[in-house]
Amino acid sequence: MSQSVEKQNMNLQKEHAVYIKPLGDWKRTHHCAELTAQNDGQEVCLMGWVQYRRDHGGLIFVDLRDREGLTQVVFSPEIAPEAHADAHIVRSEYVLAIKGKVRHRPDGMVNAGMKTGEIEVVVLDWKLLNTAKTPPFPVEDRTDAGENLRLQWRYLDIRRPRMTQNLRLRHRITNAARNYLDELGFLEVETPVLTKSTPEGARDFLVPSRLNHGEFYALPQSPQQFKQMLMMSGLDRYYQVARCFRDEDLRADRQPEFTQIDIEMSYVAENDVMTMAEGMMKRIFKEAMDVDIPVPFPRMFYDDAMRDYGVDKPDTRFDMKLKDITSIVRGSGFKLFATAELVKGMKVVGGAAMTRKEIEDHTEFVKIYGAQGLAWIKVHENEWQSPITKFFSEEEKQAIKEALDLHVGDIAFFQAGAASMVNAALGNLRIRLGQQLGLIPENSWNFLWVTDFPLFEYSEEEKRYVACHHPFTAVREDTKDLMKSDPAKAKARAYDMVLNGNEIGGGSIRIHTSEDQFNMFEALGFTDESAYAQFGYFINALEYGTPPHGGIAFGLDRIAMLLAGAGSIRDVIAFPKTQKATCLLTNAPDVVAAAQLRDLGLRLREENKKAEQE
Amino acid sequence: MSQSVEKQNMNLQKEHAVYIKPLGDWKRTHHCAELTAQNDGQEVCLMGWVQYRRDHGGLIFVDLRDREGLTQVVFSPEIAPEAHADAHIVRSEYVLAIKGKVRHRPDGMVNAGMKTGEIEVVVLDWKLLNTAKTPPFPVEDRTDAGENLRLQWRYLDIRRPRMTQNLRLRHRITNAARNYLDELGFLEVETPVLTKSTPEGARDFLVPSRLNHGEFYALPQSPQQFKQMLMMSGLDRYYQVARCFRDEDLRADRQPEFTQIDIEMSYVAENDVMTMAEGMMKRIFKEAMDVDIPVPFPRMFYDDAMRDYGVDKPDTRFDMKLKDITSIVRGSGFKLFATAELVKGMKVVGGAAMTRKEIEDHTEFVKIYGAQGLAWIKVHENEWQSPITKFFSEEEKQAIKEALDLHVGDIAFFQAGAASMVNAALGNLRIRLGQQLGLIPENSWNFLWVTDFPLFEYSEEEKRYVACHHPFTAVREDTKDLMKSDPAKAKARAYDMVLNGNEIGGGSIRIHTSEDQFNMFEALGFTDESAYAQFGYFINALEYGTPPHGGIAFGLDRIAMLLAGAGSIRDVIAFPKTQKATCLLTNAPDVVAAAQLRDLGLRLREENKKAEQE
Repeated sequence: MSQSVEKQNMNLQKEHAVYIKPLGDWKRTHHCAELTAQNDGQEVCLMGWVQYRRDHGGLIFVDLRDREGLTQVVFSPEIAPEAHADAHIVRSEYVLAIKGKVRHRPDGMVNAGMKTGEIEVVVLDWKLLNTAKTPPFPVEDRTDAGENLRLQWRYLDIRRPRMTQNLRLRHRITNAARNYLDELGFLEVETPVLTKSTPEGARDFLVPSRLNHGEFYALPQSPQQFKQMLMMSGLDRYYQVARCFRDEDLRADRQPEFTQIDIEMSYVAENDVMTMAEGMMKRIFKEAMDVDIPVPFPRMFYDDAMRDYGVDKPDTRFDMKLKDITSIVRGSGFKLFATAELVKGMKVVGGAAMTRKEIEDHTEFVKIYGAQGLAWIKVHENEWQSPITKFFSEEEKQAIKEALDLHVGDIAFFQAGAASMVNAALGNLRIRLGQQLGLIPENSWNFLWVTDFPLFEYSEEEKRYVACHHPFTAVREDTKDLMKSDPAKAKARAYDMVLNGNEIGGGSIRIHTSEDQFNMFEALGFTDESAYAQFGYFINALEYGTPPHGGIAFGLDRIAMLLAGAGSIRDVIAFPKTQKATCLLTNAPDVVAAAQLRDLGLRLREENKKAEQE
Repeated sequence: MSQSVEKQNMNLQKEHAVYIKPLGDWKRTHHCAELTAQNDGQEVCLMGWVQYRRDHGGLIFVDLRDREGLTQVVFSPEIAPEAHADAHIVRSEYVLAIKGKVRHRPDGMVNAGMKTGEIEVVVLDWKLLNTAKTPPFPVEDRTDAGENLRLQWRYLDIRRPRMTQNLRLRHRITNAARNYLDELGFLEVETPVLTKSTPEGARDFLVPSRLNHGEFYALPQSPQQFKQMLMMSGLDRYYQVARCFRDEDLRADRQPEFTQIDIEMSYVAENDVMTMAEGMMKRIFKEAMDVDIPVPFPRMFYDDAMRDYGVDKPDTRFDMKLKDITSIVRGSGFKLFATAELVKGMKVVGGAAMTRKEIEDHTEFVKIYGAQGLAWIKVHENEWQSPITKFFSEEEKQAIKEALDLHVGDIAFFQAGAASMVNAALGNLRIRLGQQLGLIPENSWNFLWVTDFPLFEYSEEEKRYVACHHPFTAVREDTKDLMKSDPAKAKARAYDMVLNGNEIGGGSIRIHTSEDQFNMFEALGFTDESAYAQFGYFINALEYGTPPHGGIAFGLDRIAMLLAGAGSIRDVIAFPKTQKATCLLTNAPDVVAAAQLRDLGLRLREENKKAEQE
């Protein structure tokens, strides 16, 4: 649409307002994706938005759009001259109610690509329900509008069929999960949003209390302690589609508020929770996608995932495993390899044709994970091309060749150093290569359980062990003694559900005796006193007959994103925040009146810039 | 239980911990309200809490409790000596897993009042899953524990069958509503909890932004603007079981966070929303209570409700209407009545026997509503007993008698003064009398719509008209002109659903054109600029093709309370706050580390007392 027409429409929105009529007693008879040749001759009433208007030989054609789809309606000067008279005013996104008669489209005008493509509705009477300014971007799936523009005009963005479908899919997913859990006797219980700040996790959002100055509620990072207390309450099976909050510096795919399908069960071991969870995913895929997924899902130990894939959420849709060659190169002349904690290689079949530029790109990529560089070997017909093979003996080369099963035309990448870096660098390079080289089959859904996570990880920042999952996770009985003697080796009764390389859910069997809970806090460096100060009410609760229990929580946003094939969780959230945690539509967060802060007993440390400008 | 036994058990909890065994691969086969004579001879596995232990002639009887009910299990030294050996350790609220054989109870021992009363389970093997300290109150429906004690030990309180049933009922209500709405094509959409502060309502809870110092999110009082924007988004039919937040000084039955079943529909008028809502309540009553309620519900104009009942949410389970006698006493010798804006009377059939003390109580009661006193007339055989009848002529007395249809043995109460006070005083006295005199039939469910509310009410505090419902409510077309000329008489397209005298839902048809919205803001005393400053994004949105729409929101907590027959909404909320907005279980709100406040760019105006003590 040209600039001048646009400007004209901006004015028309107000000018045309005089044509607006109240809805009155008009009622829709059908939605806009419903009518077919079977309805020929029927009188109908449709309501929706003008997608397109075309004037053609006296006739005015309008594609009317609602949540379900499009129907072509025709204003004809012969059939209904009165209805036709004012129809020229309608513009894109005007809201119409039309009464008319369904008729077959003329031969050759049938649109097979459209649900209602066989018919059109000849308008007999209509009402303009509202006008519209010209939208800043057309309401169509194909748009070149940037995300910030879309977020600022979110109500127009959601009118686009793809966004509407995403939100509908999310509804279906939630519904399928709820129905499944309800049938299994899970009770949905709402837990508080205004609750207590808990350490041992991400940063909490705080809510100042007006009635108790200097005190604060915290928004929950998850209902973890409440759901455990519901098991202590004897509720046996709990679920909640729960809003959770983390005040983190946002990564690409995080939101300050997000939604968990949160589940807890009493009298269970790992298998019970995992089987229940598999059934739920099967139900979701069937109801929301009409896809049958096989259960049970494959299982993999955390140690094996790290060994073969370098990450704890392997994408098993393609192979390309990492190979440990530490022992092969231990005594080699290449000092970097010879002395490294871990050396791993990864073969890319047919990758010898990779250009220097491509290899440089990959080298830059692995630096994100702390790598200094990226060693490689190209296998040609009669020789290896590589900056590093000169350091290796023939025996070492032969051993590398066998370990990686190298053949002519392959390339292999290597990484040496600290185990965590080596795994992260090669593991993530593997994903990148899988995507770039088209190794990942489309429309495949690879589910995987990763189990037996470490109970602890050492925090360089805090100079102590912290819980990998959370401090309420039970230890695997056979590694209980390691909690003190060799904490890094203790295993958690924890499990993650992975879909196509994405962690979509995670849970554990919980500690259910106060003794074990104290042992855990001790291992984390708490004294009895400091544990009590922070978790006193929870430790108390454990002493009044807590049943064995465990659970799992699913990331609903992530699941909806994957099933929708969306590029970001923001595309499956109606009103998401930006990476700066702002809402471009409402302008939240915002300055507030000084009186509001006074009521809360608070003062700003410095003047806010926005407030100064106002 | 005596003090000494209690103390002993406190120690036993730790002492007996050595008997605790892991769950291992044991699996429940049945819950504790499932087994009947039909299961005679079956081997079963039950898990639950010890309700009672009785030792009887060598046998140890335990009533085992889970969410569903009780089963009697027996430890017999003859049948399973090994299982019997340690059974003496079990105490109330210990957690057991038992494997055993179902058998008929001996003749005369059958308990017909118990679902599983025909049988008992003879224990063959068992595990102690956990011990318990002696609870501060017994886990039984009948308890004399005060509410604060119950809230402090909420996980024990919820174990009581009545509380478990309340939470289960709430789950069923929610489920029934969701299923109904899903079937009608409503999409559940989650709207933000971290959003923008909106004026024109109750006080917001604020959440300081760490990334934007001096700026704040607000927790939503309701998703009102988001649900309207979802209609602008073309989603057509939206619902959400939505957490809402109001930082109010709490009245008896309010919570700082509460739950709404929030609904919005496009292309509808009042009737469409009301019919949908009636269907939802019918479904809820059927699924959650197995009660058939007739639809449609009766409807009453707000003006008629005020005239006949003095309140806008009349309890129509009993009659006893108020009668306007203003014109009768206008010229009377009783100055208070003669000059009052409104004079109303209310007859209590057979109330002449009321004592002076009772009348004094009622007089004290109406003072809550601003009344100075409470006039009354007792109708005896040959005379009226009353402090006020001396002021009236025989004609006036005759007219009062006819207006109130007074008969021998009745009492009538009168109130004179400002209309709002008269209605509130007598209307609430009516409810009180209905309860005290047993006029309200039990197990009756009287639904009622109250419609055509005033659009505005005058705020003495703000010295301006404010919206009765909210500033997005449409005006009844025939009273549109009154918005300027006589605002108090303009009527809103609003409707409240009332159940047994409780407002359980309310909604309206919304303004959907920017012109009408500006008119509304103007009537509320906004300039175009101040309206834009506060609601700019919303007014903008109205200009891009907003369809006619309306909706309703139900108070889930209140509905659950009424259906549960509970005395407080706290009895249908798992972890409620006290009237001081504190959580006695977790001790929220609480002081936070100074560093947390620094991160948020905040400073306390004064030191917190709790912090000083620490």
